[in-house]
Amino acid sequence: MDLNADLGEAFGVWSMGDDAAMLAQVSSANIACGFHAGDPQSMRTTAGNAASAGVAIGAHVAYRDLAGFGRRFVDAHPDELSADVYYQLCALDGMARAAGEQVRYVKPHGALYHACHDHRPHAAAVVEAMTLFAEATGRRLPLLLAPGALAHDLAAERGFATPKEVFADRGYNPDGTLVSRRAPGAVITDVPIVVEAMQRFVEEGTIIAIDGTVIPMEAESICLHGDTPGAVAMAESVRAALAGTGANIVSFA
Amino acid sequence: MDLNADLGEAFGVWSMGDDAAMLAQVSSANIACGFHAGDPQSMRTTAGNAASAGVAIGAHVAYRDLAGFGRRFVDAHPDELSADVYYQLCALDGMARAAGEQVRYVKPHGALYHACHDHRPHAAAVVEAMTLFAEATGRRLPLLLAPGALAHDLAAERGFATPKEVFADRGYNPDGTLVSRRAPGAVITDVPIVVEAMQRFVEEGTIIAIDGTVIPMEAESICLHGDTPGAVAMAESVRAALAGTGANIVSFA
Amino acid sequence: MDLNADLGEAFGVWSMGDDAAMLAQVSSANIACGFHAGDPQSMRTTAGNAASAGVAIGAHVAYRDLAGFGRRFVDAHPDELSADVYYQLCALDGMARAAGEQVRYVKPHGALYHACHDHRPHAAAVVEAMTLFAEATGRRLPLLLAPGALAHDLAAERGFATPKEVFADRGYNPDGTLVSRRAPGAVITDVPIVVEAMQRFVEEGTIIAIDGTVIPMEAESICLHGDTPGAVAMAESVRAALAGTGANIVSFA
Amino acid sequence: MDLNADLGEAFGVWSMGDDAAMLAQVSSANIACGFHAGDPQSMRTTAGNAASAGVAIGAHVAYRDLAGFGRRFVDAHPDELSADVYYQLCALDGMARAAGEQVRYVKPHGALYHACHDHRPHAAAVVEAMTLFAEATGRRLPLLLAPGALAHDLAAERGFATPKEVFADRGYNPDGTLVSRRAPGAVITDVPIVVEAMQRFVEEGTIIAIDGTVIPMEAESICLHGDTPGAVAMAESVRAALAGTGANIVSFA
Repeated sequence: MDLNADLGEAFGVWSMGDDAAMLAQVSSANIACGFHAGDPQSMRTTAGNAASAGVAIGAHVAYRDLAGFGRRFVDAHPDELSADVYYQLCALDGMARAAGEQVRYVKPHGALYHACHDHRPHAAAVVEAMTLFAEATGRRLPLLLAPGALAHDLAAERGFATPKEVFADRGYNPDGTLVSRRAPGAVITDVPIVVEAMQRFVEEGTIIAIDGTVIPMEAESICLHGDTPGAVAMAESVRAALAGTGANIVSFA
Repeated sequence: MDLNADLGEAFGVWSMGDDAAMLAQVSSANIACGFHAGDPQSMRTTAGNAASAGVAIGAHVAYRDLAGFGRRFVDAHPDELSADVYYQLCALDGMARAAGEQVRYVKPHGALYHACHDHRPHAAAVVEAMTLFAEATGRRLPLLLAPGALAHDLAAERGFATPKEVFADRGYNPDGTLVSRRAPGAVITDVPIVVEAMQRFVEEGTIIAIDGTVIPMEAESICLHGDTPGAVAMAESVRAALAGTGANIVSFA
Repeated sequence: MDLNADLGEAFGVWSMGDDAAMLAQVSSANIACGFHAGDPQSMRTTAGNAASAGVAIGAHVAYRDLAGFGRRFVDAHPDELSADVYYQLCALDGMARAAGEQVRYVKPHGALYHACHDHRPHAAAVVEAMTLFAEATGRRLPLLLAPGALAHDLAAERGFATPKEVFADRGYNPDGTLVSRRAPGAVITDVPIVVEAMQRFVEEGTIIAIDGTVIPMEAESICLHGDTPGAVAMAESVRAALAGTGANIVSFA
Repeated sequence: MDLNADLGEAFGVWSMGDDAAMLAQVSSANIACGFHAGDPQSMRTTAGNAASAGVAIGAHVAYRDLAGFGRRFVDAHPDELSADVYYQLCALDGMARAAGEQVRYVKPHGALYHACHDHRPHAAAVVEAMTLFAEATGRRLPLLLAPGALAHDLAAERGFATPKEVFADRGYNPDGTLVSRRAPGAVITDVPIVVEAMQRFVEEGTIIAIDGTVIPMEAESICLHGDTPGAVAMAESVRAALAGTGANIVSFA
């Protein structure tokens, strides 16, 4: 089982989250590539710290939108988007190689993450960027998304691995989708509840939806949030609980 | 003898120069990397066109300054600057590799070009970025600058090649420096004068300064400008004249 | 009858269109405010030139998207968007006041223009920004859009004038909507056809759709494009033809 | 006596400092205008909160440099810089007016602050922007800088008020200049020492330099830092101590 979190989300003087503490908990780090967050210097530092900690480096690619932190859908042309994503991949891979490592996987960020689940042209653009990267480097990177993503179908057709993730602190609808952030129950801040849910997920492969429905959940990774109050404490608790189940915490990548 | 020009200086909807026409004349293309000009899609297109034309791809690295087109000195911290330059190198190299090619050399742009001649911390930062790239990829890229650049000294110490360039359409002072753009004689627009000067340079290794002094000029490349009216016609004339001297027009890189 | 065109769409070193020539033809200038194009210096110059030419200054407000020239829908939060639009209004008004003039009207640009026709939260956000401006300055600016815009309804409810425009060089569907740019007949480049259509519009208040249907068209302004080859010649022809009809060419604002 | 601090230094999702707490302590707020920090929505919020708290709104104008937080000198052309500064002034003034207030003074930020002390073209560009603003609005804004600033001389020549500030937590050289941030003693974090120094400054009009020299200091405002750990506590202590001296804490503007 893998634990992943978003890291390297600083920009210039502005910091976000406690990267050092989170690096001690996760096995995979989704590192911002400069389009929604991250500047070259912070990317270099974060990639270096991840490499030193033995944490797999993932490219947290995004729409070009610093002002909106990549959380706003941008109706980019697919050719433009695939070039933007490929640019980010290559730049972060350089930072990883400067640390003796390399980018191990791709996880779209924010609005692009959501688009990868249901927006065909943008999902295809992300897979196109990964294909370019594979052709240029010989490395077919896994694509990390939630179960059921359209981009996973497109990526699988081209022979990419398609690891899935479950969100530790998010509520689920009975159909396996996330509770909207605008609805009650979207985010779970109670640590014991999160810990129990993740134990069940690891041991039984199920999640309990907000209405009590038990839903099957296949995923190779658990996504932890790093930028909220109590994020580090929750990450520590989840990791400890997983260790208690005998699960081996190691990146899928 | 090499002919180089700045290409790929579009940004989004804004274009600059006639890249297609210039690619037919030059042997080396300095391609913008997104920090002073160039967006990922235009970089991909330009790198692809250069590769198709058999023109060597150089990384035209710059300060982060789209509003100023990289022509303004920015007092960046050297660590920040080396990360910025390295990021640009890796991103453009990805675009070149997507076209079956790779970045062949580095030429700083605008204010960073000037800083490489006399600003030690920034000159060192550029060389540091090239060193990172060499360590990550095993490729030691040549650094293209005017004769006498401080960054050339620093690059040579680390084993990088240091090709020099002469400007086809710029006036020179008797000491071999360029006439300031604010002074008369800075830019030569008369094609026959430029052609004669470049013939003399190729055949005799000399340039005639604005006061008539004959000065020796060692350079492996001639820099043509691509963004001025008449740029293409001048490039064609210079190329034809060089061919007439029997010079072999091929990139140094 | 008013003639309007987009001006001031430069950014830094990059220029677009022939503003000086277009200023001699139009009665209203939609001036970019820095979010999709325009930098403070070019805004100041363009506003000054418009003021000198007696051309009404309109705020061409847009999504924050230099890389996409404001042509990409950005799913901004309405509060963020209204602040962005208000910021642009105030900045351009300052440039106009520096030239002894003031912003006379608002015309959303690109994707925001389209959103004003059918995206309720964003249409409302634009009207909210105009309301803020009215409260701060006592000036209720007219909002220039195509007929049938949702934002016109919202603006009218708050007492704003809602002038309408027709596009000189665009094809119309029988229902009065524009032919999609992806379909044949979207853009008309033949000057006599455009001239004849605008004469008919001014004299009869009708437009002939691409299938020959005669459709009524009420509009106080004709939009000319300034950034295409032949734009100036077409503008001159349309203006001359309108003068020939006896129409008085003067801004609605 | 006035207390001023930098506020509104967020950008998008990134926050900085505790604006609400600082607003309760200061009488003047230097609000970022979008070029080094601040986005339109945060500017609107901050201006509104300052207005509600009865705190004077100052325009914290800066070089266009989000990535460097305006701390890097940018060798902008003076015409470009004056337009940039004027744009910021007008935009923030709009936000202030939306809150029933207006910009009351100008304080350059970061590298531009330093340039105003010794870089003639940039000092003149700031004053030029203030002159444009005065001509457009009829309001001659005071310019807040440290004693001895070149821009103060230029501003005074044009009839602007030139209030001076002293830094509460910075060490001073015997000549009245600040100890360089790279030298020991640059920043004083010990609250009682800062409080004592500010009491002496208010009561005696002197500062004790790092070598013990007593230097006269004329200033109408004390600058507090809001973005450091302990900033709020220090601000509270300084304010309380000033109140204890009987000083009336009110903005100069």
